[in-house]
Amino acid sequence: MTAVLIPNDSEFGIDNLPYGVFSTAEAAERVGVRVGDSVVDLAAALGDTIFDTASLNPFMAQGRNRWIDVRRQITELIEADAVPANALHDLGTVNLHMPFEVADYVDFYASEHHARNLGRLFRPDSEPLMPNWKHLPVGYHGRAGTVVVSGTEIIRPSGQRKVPAQSVPDFGPSRRLDIEVEMGFVVGVGTPLGTRINPDQFAEHVFGAVIVNDWSARDIQAWEYVPLGPFLGKSFATSISPWVVPMLALEPARIDTPLQDPRPLPYLREQRSWALDIDIVVEWNGHEVSRPLYSAMYWSPAQMLAHITINGASSRTGDLFASGTVSGPEQEQRGSFIELTWDGTEPIAIGDDNRTFLQDGDEVVITVSAPGSTGRRIGFGEVRGRIVASKSS
Amino acid sequence: MTAVLIPNDSEFGIDNLPYGVFSTAEAAERVGVRVGDSVVDLAAALGDTIFDTASLNPFMAQGRNRWIDVRRQITELIEADAVPANALHDLGTVNLHMPFEVADYVDFYASEHHARNLGRLFRPDSEPLMPNWKHLPVGYHGRAGTVVVSGTEIIRPSGQRKVPAQSVPDFGPSRRLDIEVEMGFVVGVGTPLGTRINPDQFAEHVFGAVIVNDWSARDIQAWEYVPLGPFLGKSFATSISPWVVPMLALEPARIDTPLQDPRPLPYLREQRSWALDIDIVVEWNGHEVSRPLYSAMYWSPAQMLAHITINGASSRTGDLFASGTVSGPEQEQRGSFIELTWDGTEPIAIGDDNRTFLQDGDEVVITVSAPGSTGRRIGFGEVRGRIVASKSS
Repeated sequence: MTAVLIPNDSEFGIDNLPYGVFSTAEAAERVGVRVGDSVVDLAAALGDTIFDTASLNPFMAQGRNRWIDVRRQITELIEADAVPANALHDLGTVNLHMPFEVADYVDFYASEHHARNLGRLFRPDSEPLMPNWKHLPVGYHGRAGTVVVSGTEIIRPSGQRKVPAQSVPDFGPSRRLDIEVEMGFVVGVGTPLGTRINPDQFAEHVFGAVIVNDWSARDIQAWEYVPLGPFLGKSFATSISPWVVPMLALEPARIDTPLQDPRPLPYLREQRSWALDIDIVVEWNGHEVSRPLYSAMYWSPAQMLAHITINGASSRTGDLFASGTVSGPEQEQRGSFIELTWDGTEPIAIGDDNRTFLQDGDEVVITVSAPGSTGRRIGFGEVRGRIVASKSS
Repeated sequence: MTAVLIPNDSEFGIDNLPYGVFSTAEAAERVGVRVGDSVVDLAAALGDTIFDTASLNPFMAQGRNRWIDVRRQITELIEADAVPANALHDLGTVNLHMPFEVADYVDFYASEHHARNLGRLFRPDSEPLMPNWKHLPVGYHGRAGTVVVSGTEIIRPSGQRKVPAQSVPDFGPSRRLDIEVEMGFVVGVGTPLGTRINPDQFAEHVFGAVIVNDWSARDIQAWEYVPLGPFLGKSFATSISPWVVPMLALEPARIDTPLQDPRPLPYLREQRSWALDIDIVVEWNGHEVSRPLYSAMYWSPAQMLAHITINGASSRTGDLFASGTVSGPEQEQRGSFIELTWDGTEPIAIGDDNRTFLQDGDEVVITVSAPGSTGRRIGFGEVRGRIVASKSS
C-alpha cells in the first residue's frame, strides 16, 4: 500500500479525479485515474475487470450511481494511503490514448460572439446572426472516426479551394488552417429511439467533459459549406484531451447562462443551469494568444443534449457533443485564428514571427481549468497538436 | 445436404447472394445469405465462426479477396445441392436485423434534378444550384446511431417549426414529414488518417449497397438548417434494407455517369465509372407514386468515397454513405414528397385519398433491382417504414 503524493498546487487533487486510458511498457491499454502527477490503474486498485479495457465506455454505461460509488472508492483508497503499489504509475512513464470510443459526434455553435464574428466574415452582406440562432442551439454532426487524442499529429488537409478572385476552384493543401477552441461532453447513459432528455436529467446521462480542438480548414470550408454545412473543412481531425473530467467534479463550476432573450421554448429550460465557469488558455508555439471566455457561452451543455434528443433521436454511450468555438466579447478572448486575425488581415505576433493561419511545424496547446470544491482549481490538462505537411497534393 | 429452390423469376439467384443478419426462434442473430426465398446460415454452411455474430463488420473487414472467395464457396455449395439442411431457413420464418454496425454516416446530394428542385423550394430568391455543386459531390455527416433496419416504426419527430407567417417558432410534431429515396454504400476495408481512396480503388474498399430512406421533417429542417446544415430534421431515423447486395453482384449494372461539365478535378476522375443502372419503385400505402431514376445521378459512389477521404480523413469498416435523394427529370421520377407535391401545393392521389406529406399510419415501401449477370434482374428487396404518432408534444 502506498501514499499518493499530491503537490499543494496540483490541479489534480481528490476533488478532480479525471479518467483516462493509459498503457505502460509492460501493460496494455487500461483505465486509469490521474491524481497529482500519478496515474492509478483502476483494475489493479479496485480489482474490477471493467477497467481492464482500452475504453471508458463499459464503465460510463453503468450509470451515475456507479460513477458516484467508484469516485468514493478511489477517494477512500487515496485518503487511507491504501493504493496498491502495483496500481501506481508516474504520469511521465505512461502513454495516454483515446479515453473512449466516440459513437456520434455533434458540434454546436453556442457562442454568440463567435457566431457573430463568423457571420460577418463568411456572409459580409447579410445579418451575421441567423434568425434561428437565439431560438435553438444550432449544431450539426461531425465525423466520429477522426476524433483523435491530444498529441496526434495533424496532417494538413488538401482539398478544393476557391477565393473570390478565382472563377473555378483549384486543388491543394489548405492555406487557411485554423483551430476551434471548444469544450466537449461525453454521454455515459444513452436513451432509446422516441425518448427525450430533459435538461434537468443532464447529470444522469453525461459522464464528463474534455477539451476539444476542432481543427478547421477555412478555405475548404468556405467553398463547400453551402447549403448542407461544413464537411471536409472539419472532418480531417478533431483533437480531445486524454482526461475526462467527471461532471461530478464540476458541480462547483456551475453558473447561470447569460440572459437568454427571447426565453427558450420549454424543452430548453433548465431548473438550474449547467453553464460552467471554465478558464481556457491558448498557446501558439509557446506564446499565449487567447483566453476564450467559456462563461459567456449562450447555450448550456444541458440545453444542447435536450436539443439533440427532442426529435426522438436515440443517444448512445460515447456520444460526444462539443460547444462550438468559445469566444468572448474581447479580441483576446476569441477561440479561433480566423477571428483573432480577422480573416488573416491582422496578423498576430508569435515571438519574432507574425502569423495569420497555421504553418507546418506550428503547435497549439489549449489548457483548461475550473473551480474545484477545495478552493483549489481542477485541471483538464491540455489538448496539444502539431501541424505536419500535407502528404501529397 | 439439401437443394436450395430458386424460383425462375426470383431476383435472388446465384448472381445476387446478398448478405444480412437474421435470427430464428431457436438461434440468436447471425450472418446469412438470401437465396430465392431461403436464408443460408453461413456459420453453419461454411463452418466459419466469423459469421456467428450479429454484424457483417468482421467479415467485411477481411477484404475483397475474401469476399470473392466466400461468394465462390456459397455458389459451389448451392450449385452442388450441398447446403447442410440445418443451415437452410425459409425466409418467412426468420427475423431480419441491422446487417452491420454503422461507423460514420455521410449523406450526399448527388442528383442534379433533386438539388435544383430543393433549391427552388428552399431558396426561391436565389440560383437553385450553388456554385460548388458541379465541382464536388456536396455532402454532410448524418447520425449513425439512428440508422435502423427496414420495418422499424418511424416515430413522428417533434421540434421547432416556423412558417414565414410566424414571427417566432412554435413547437410540436412535424407537419411536413417526408421521405428521401436513396442508395447507400457500405465500406468494408477502411483507411488510416492521412490517406486517400482513389475512385478506381472503390471496389477494394466498398463491400456492398443497400436501399436507404432518409426520413426528413421539412418544417424542422427549413428552420434549423442555416448555416450549418440539416440536423434534427433528419437525425430521428434513417431506414435501410436488411440485405446488403455485394458490389461483386453489381458489375453488370455499371454504366457511365451523365456528362460531367465542367470536368471534375483529377481526384474525382474514374477510369471506368461506378455509376449504376438501378430501378427504384416507391409505394405509398400500397400505391405506386414514383420511379426515381438512379441512372441520372450526377456523381458516382466512387467519386463520393474519393471526396470523403481527399482531406486525409480516415474511413472505417461500417462507414455508410448515401447518394442523396434520387430524382430524375420527370415528375414521376422524383424521390421525395416535397418534390412530388411541389412543396405540398399539388397533392397526389393515393387510392381515394389525397396526400401531400405523411400522415400517422402511412406506410412507404421502396423496392429496388438492377441488371444481373444471368439476364435476370437482381433484387435489393425493400425498405419499409410506417409512421406512428409523436410520443408527446
